[in-house]
Amino acid sequence: MIAVRRPVRFEEVDAAGILFFARFAAYAHEAMERLFDDIEGGYVALITKRRIGFPAVTMAADFHAPLRYGDVARIQARVARVGTRSAELAYRIDREADSVRCATISHIVVVTDLATMTSCDMPSDVRIALTAHRGAFAIG
Amino acid sequence: MIAVRRPVRFEEVDAAGILFFARFAAYAHEAMERLFDDIEGGYVALITKRRIGFPAVTMAADFHAPLRYGDVARIQARVARVGTRSAELAYRIDREADSVRCATISHIVVVTDLATMTSCDMPSDVRIALTAHRGAFAIG
Amino acid sequence: MIAVRRPVRFEEVDAAGILFFARFAAYAHEAMERLFDDIEGGYVALITKRRIGFPAVTMAADFHAPLRYGDVARIQARVARVGTRSAELAYRIDREADSVRCATISHIVVVTDLATMTSCDMPSDVRIALTAHRGAFAIG
Amino acid sequence: MIAVRRPVRFEEVDAAGILFFARFAAYAHEAMERLFDDIEGGYVALITKRRIGFPAVTMAADFHAPLRYGDVARIQARVARVGTRSAELAYRIDREADSVRCATISHIVVVTDLATMTSCDMPSDVRIALTAHRGAFAIG
Repeated sequence: MIAVRRPVRFEEVDAAGILFFARFAAYAHEAMERLFDDIEGGYVALITKRRIGFPAVTMAADFHAPLRYGDVARIQARVARVGTRSAELAYRIDREADSVRCATISHIVVVTDLATMTSCDMPSDVRIALTAHRGAFAIG
Repeated sequence: MIAVRRPVRFEEVDAAGILFFARFAAYAHEAMERLFDDIEGGYVALITKRRIGFPAVTMAADFHAPLRYGDVARIQARVARVGTRSAELAYRIDREADSVRCATISHIVVVTDLATMTSCDMPSDVRIALTAHRGAFAIG
Repeated sequence: MIAVRRPVRFEEVDAAGILFFARFAAYAHEAMERLFDDIEGGYVALITKRRIGFPAVTMAADFHAPLRYGDVARIQARVARVGTRSAELAYRIDREADSVRCATISHIVVVTDLATMTSCDMPSDVRIALTAHRGAFAIG
Repeated sequence: MIAVRRPVRFEEVDAAGILFFARFAAYAHEAMERLFDDIEGGYVALITKRRIGFPAVTMAADFHAPLRYGDVARIQARVARVGTRSAELAYRIDREADSVRCATISHIVVVTDLATMTSCDMPSDVRIALTAHRGAFAIG
């Protein structure tokens, strides 16, 4: 499990005045990248040097409460399942000030050779890194 | 049902070289707004003048194939269900050049008074507009 | 000269309720890409196949009036100067509904080999395409 | 003067593989908001509670080197001039790893009543906060 603070930026709200709903998926991705921090070079090296990516094949989100400019999101990310060529990730996004749950997201990604855009086996260092994040959420 | 063409923009790809997955939700939203075109002032007037919004409460997406810069997305949007205070919307996003299905999205939105951020009954003109889009997808 | 219509999208406003100022540069870029339409494959092929890009070296913008969600921008783009390895582009962004000038932008780009990120001579087809857009703005 | 670290995010690069040029203006804005930190509630309260904003009237940028996914930007922001109803801000954006200068930006903003979108006098607490940031850049 990993947790990151993420202030809602000035430009991320929509014309309804709340965080644009698609941004929740972007917030989840920012936290997801941190799950790879124990790998040499992290997610960045996977993408830019080893050219291994993790495109989503499914995403499911429940939205419970809005976020606004000035709010800080607390994003928790954990690994629910590690497969041979895929992983299931889970996220909770809370509003830091009052601990209100804002979104619950799950997300299956497939290990992908970015040169060919075909799936490939999960490298062992990735497996180790993701398995280490199978712990429960710290908050609720 | 409504269909819109949407070229993938230069800035919408990610470091893996494909349309960032959260952008699919933004594409769906762009098509969704068109479902309100028959209302006076459209979605814009709902949001900015009547201050009625449609925040998502759930979203589920399956991603089948990537989109890249230069691709044109063909986004179909339809209304699957119209409730008293909510609606279920469904989307198919295809790559125009070869008709490959790229994403399938469903999305439940709740009619919301933006001043109070509480749900409210769906106005009758909105009900009529959404009901008119209950037809099947034109493509597959 | 080329002109494009561009509706302000739901997600492009900021917490002040107006088009986020950095989006004006993105709007200019969208119009800029159209200046290359007469080249085989357009700007897309330059970037993705020939790997020739046009990074900005300078940009200067004056902002005259805001755009809001629901507004349509009318973006005019013209080529002010074509050099050996660079070009100077100019833009006017007006609000379609009332023809109010919103932004005036100029922008110098350098022809760049994206593999090495070093400048290179402008290909002759690019020169021809850009030179054809040296005409004056149609409006204002 | 204020300095902030800002990692380039996965989704912020363009199809040329570098930070999309309009994002530099967004980076500058993120640093700019920090210039107001000493005000009660910061920039957030100015925008959302007091409804005072700082729309740009001009921006000038020189771009010296690209940023890529994985790079960390070091953004310095300082106040070059404080007027009655406006301020001139200056930014330097460097690549943290090798201290290469990436962009130099200047930016004039006008104090604006967001309810009427007309200029207004700079409140005294804003003047004090901005004046305190008139110091020179720490780096170069």
